[in-house]
Amino acid sequence: MIEITSLTNDKVKYWSKLNKRKYREEEGLYLVESEHLVKEALNFGIVECVMTVSEDEYDVPTYHVTKEIMNKISELESAPKIMAVVKKNKIKDIEGNVLILDRIQDPGNLGTIIRSAVAFGVKNIFLGEGCVDAYNSKVVRSSEGMLFKINLLSGNVLNLIEKLKNDNYRILGTRVTDGLEVKKINLFDKWALIIGNEGRGVSEEVLNSCDDYLYIKMSDNCESLNAAIAASIIMYELNR
Amino acid sequence: MIEITSLTNDKVKYWSKLNKRKYREEEGLYLVESEHLVKEALNFGIVECVMTVSEDEYDVPTYHVTKEIMNKISELESAPKIMAVVKKNKIKDIEGNVLILDRIQDPGNLGTIIRSAVAFGVKNIFLGEGCVDAYNSKVVRSSEGMLFKINLLSGNVLNLIEKLKNDNYRILGTRVTDGLEVKKINLFDKWALIIGNEGRGVSEEVLNSCDDYLYIKMSDNCESLNAAIAASIIMYELNR
Repeated sequence: MIEITSLTNDKVKYWSKLNKRKYREEEGLYLVESEHLVKEALNFGIVECVMTVSEDEYDVPTYHVTKEIMNKISELESAPKIMAVVKKNKIKDIEGNVLILDRIQDPGNLGTIIRSAVAFGVKNIFLGEGCVDAYNSKVVRSSEGMLFKINLLSGNVLNLIEKLKNDNYRILGTRVTDGLEVKKINLFDKWALIIGNEGRGVSEEVLNSCDDYLYIKMSDNCESLNAAIAASIIMYELNR
Repeated sequence: MIEITSLTNDKVKYWSKLNKRKYREEEGLYLVESEHLVKEALNFGIVECVMTVSEDEYDVPTYHVTKEIMNKISELESAPKIMAVVKKNKIKDIEGNVLILDRIQDPGNLGTIIRSAVAFGVKNIFLGEGCVDAYNSKVVRSSEGMLFKINLLSGNVLNLIEKLKNDNYRILGTRVTDGLEVKKINLFDKWALIIGNEGRGVSEEVLNSCDDYLYIKMSDNCESLNAAIAASIIMYELNR
């Protein structure tokens, strides 16, 4: 175990930088905070561990730091005892169903969507341009370790839809009322579901390229559901 | 419209205090931030409006304040142009189905649960001891105005369950795997659904007093769903 006590140590600066999307993208790395997530991450490519305690040691380079250093690096209100630098997921070719996210902005929503996707057997999440970074610390936390288990891709949604259509995917858009009631649909063989921005829904040009439109039946008293709730209910139904 | 420019004005201090649960409970009032929510709240008991703009005027006492004052009162990262002091919902006797929350801690989860409850026809939410305050600004925001439309009660969960049982309610607990698969259940005439704490689920003594246990079928890769997601999927199914 390597001891670090100075707040201005280069390693400390380096870890802090990983809280910024730009550095995560440059390095292909991100931070995972707190013991239960670090343990989950162990099977998925930990580069190094940082901890204020010294009991636990994992089979990776481990740094023992002061609480002040941990406070500096951590994005949590109360800094954890352990965090890890983790390699971003390896990007694989798409096999199986796809959840496409069109400008999802809220990190808590994205994390929750990732968690539900794994729960309901969705293997691939495609983050369109304008989505929050999936390796943002709040996304990582709210995914409860499910981030490690999903194939995460990103890029232009319209290009992806074109490719998927050539591969006989059914492209499923979502609207608040109009379309097929999700509870009553027949199941599709290969599908890609598109969930849109929290306030504005799926963008019009993306919506225009869909094959079908799904909606969730609800009371007239309520205009719309939270994006993570809508995504989860539809994935739950498509997985039945 | 009354003009206020001093950060130390008594009204400003009073509004700021409403960000604390204790004062909201003493006053029976809470703050609603941003125009679309203030407009929704108009039908549900606005006491007064506070705004930095002067175009809009509602039919209630209205205060024109500086941006600095708004920043001081607001809990948002970027302060809104309008907020309102709103009367807490009138508490009504329980009629119809009930969602019981056992130590739900995350304000975003609670707001999302309230929004889904209204969407899926649940009329009453009972907040057990140890729940986050429903009039917390983050709850109000994430409920997207649905907070105004639901009967919110609070107190001891075990006492409530006893009363509901005497009134022939079916008490539905939730567990991660064990019990009735929610997709396959027969519908109940009168039910109360219990959703537990984000990390620890429903407490044991509450769980022991349930008539049935529901679970949502999911992949072995995922241990559990987010509490708001689980609550929403079950309410969605019970409302079919």
